[in-house]
Amino acid sequence: MIPADNYPSSALRDAVDAISSLPGVGSRSALRLALHLLKQPADKIHHFASAIDNLAEGVHYCKTCMMVADGDECSICADPRRDHGTICVVESVRDVMSIEATGQYHGVYHVLGGIISPIAGVGPSDLTIKQLVERVGPGNEVIMALSGDVEGETTAFYIYRQIAPKGCRVTTLARGLGFGDELEYADALTLGRSIVNRQEFKP
Amino acid sequence: MIPADNYPSSALRDAVDAISSLPGVGSRSALRLALHLLKQPADKIHHFASAIDNLAEGVHYCKTCMMVADGDECSICADPRRDHGTICVVESVRDVMSIEATGQYHGVYHVLGGIISPIAGVGPSDLTIKQLVERVGPGNEVIMALSGDVEGETTAFYIYRQIAPKGCRVTTLARGLGFGDELEYADALTLGRSIVNRQEFKP
Repeated sequence: MIPADNYPSSALRDAVDAISSLPGVGSRSALRLALHLLKQPADKIHHFASAIDNLAEGVHYCKTCMMVADGDECSICADPRRDHGTICVVESVRDVMSIEATGQYHGVYHVLGGIISPIAGVGPSDLTIKQLVERVGPGNEVIMALSGDVEGETTAFYIYRQIAPKGCRVTTLARGLGFGDELEYADALTLGRSIVNRQEFKP
Repeated sequence: MIPADNYPSSALRDAVDAISSLPGVGSRSALRLALHLLKQPADKIHHFASAIDNLAEGVHYCKTCMMVADGDECSICADPRRDHGTICVVESVRDVMSIEATGQYHGVYHVLGGIISPIAGVGPSDLTIKQLVERVGPGNEVIMALSGDVEGETTAFYIYRQIAPKGCRVTTLARGLGFGDELEYADALTLGRSIVNRQEFKP
C-alpha cells in the first residue's frame, strides 16, 4: 500500500516493518499502530519496548509441564492443592489459560508446544511427547484436550499409542453441541456425533 | 477474558498489557501476538523491541511542515523539485503518505497534527494552525485536504478565516462519486452534491 521508499522517517519505517511482521497485522494497521505509539510520551514508548524485550529472557518454561513460568516450575505444578495424578494434554500455553479461566479443572497440564502436522512440517519429535511419556504411569489419567480437527485427532491417536502401554487411563474432552447452541445452526458432523454419543438425561 | 492473576509469567503479562494498550487490540489478540513473539528467537524479539524503542528519539519533525522526518527538515520540504508555493493542509502523517502514494501531487504539505473537535477536547491551539498562518502569503495556494465530516469542515472553515486575509488562494479536495462507484450505492448527500457541483464533460 505504502511504497517502501515513501516513508518519511527511517525509524518509523523500521517500527512499521517490525509491527507488520506480526501475524494478522497488515502494513496499514502497522502504520496506524506505529503512529499511535509515536504520539505517546517517550517514557511510555520505552516502557512498551522493554515489556516486549523482556519476553526474550524473562519468560521461562516449567520443567515438568513445559508451560511458561517465572522460574523453572510453573505455579500450577508448584501448587500442592492441584491433583497431580490428572494430566491435561494441550497444544499451547493459550489452551492452558483458556481451561484455567473456566475454573473447572483442578489437575495439572502438559503443553505439547504444537500439533502433529505433516503439511506444516511438525512431527512428533518437535513436540514434548517424549517428556509426557516419561511423566505418566499407572494411576494417572491423561485428558486429551486437543482440537477436533484432523491434526488434533492424529496427535491424540499418536500419543495414545505411546502412553497406553504405561497403564494410564486416557480420556478426551466431551464433544457435542455447545451450551446455548441452536440445533438449526449446528453442523451435521457435530449434530450427528451428539446423537451417537448421547448421554443420560439428568434432571 | 483472561483474569489478571491467571498469567503464568509476569513477563508475559507485562507484554500482553503493553500490546493491549494499542488501539483496536483486545486482550485476546494481545495474548496471541505476545505468544507469537515469544516463539521467535531472542535476537528477533530484541530487534522488534528496539525498533519500537527508537520511535521515542529516532523520529523528528520537519520545522516547516511538521511532518515526521529523519532530521529537522523532511525530504519533501528539502526537495527543490517540489512546488513550494502550493501547500496541502492535512490532519496527519498518514494523510501525507496516502497523498504521496497517489503520485499526483507535487507541492508541499502542512500537517495539523489533529482536527478541531470540541468533543475530543481538541481546540485550534492544539494544532499547528499558527505555524501555517506564518507560512502563507500572497501567491500561495492552500489546499484543504481534510475529511468531509463536521470536524473536518469546521477545521477548514476556521483555517480559511485565518489565512484568507493573507491573500492566498484557498482550494479544497474535489468531492463527489468515487471512481468506479455505482450510483445505486452512493449515499444521498454525496450524490446530491455531485449533481450540484457537476463538471464539464471532457471526452
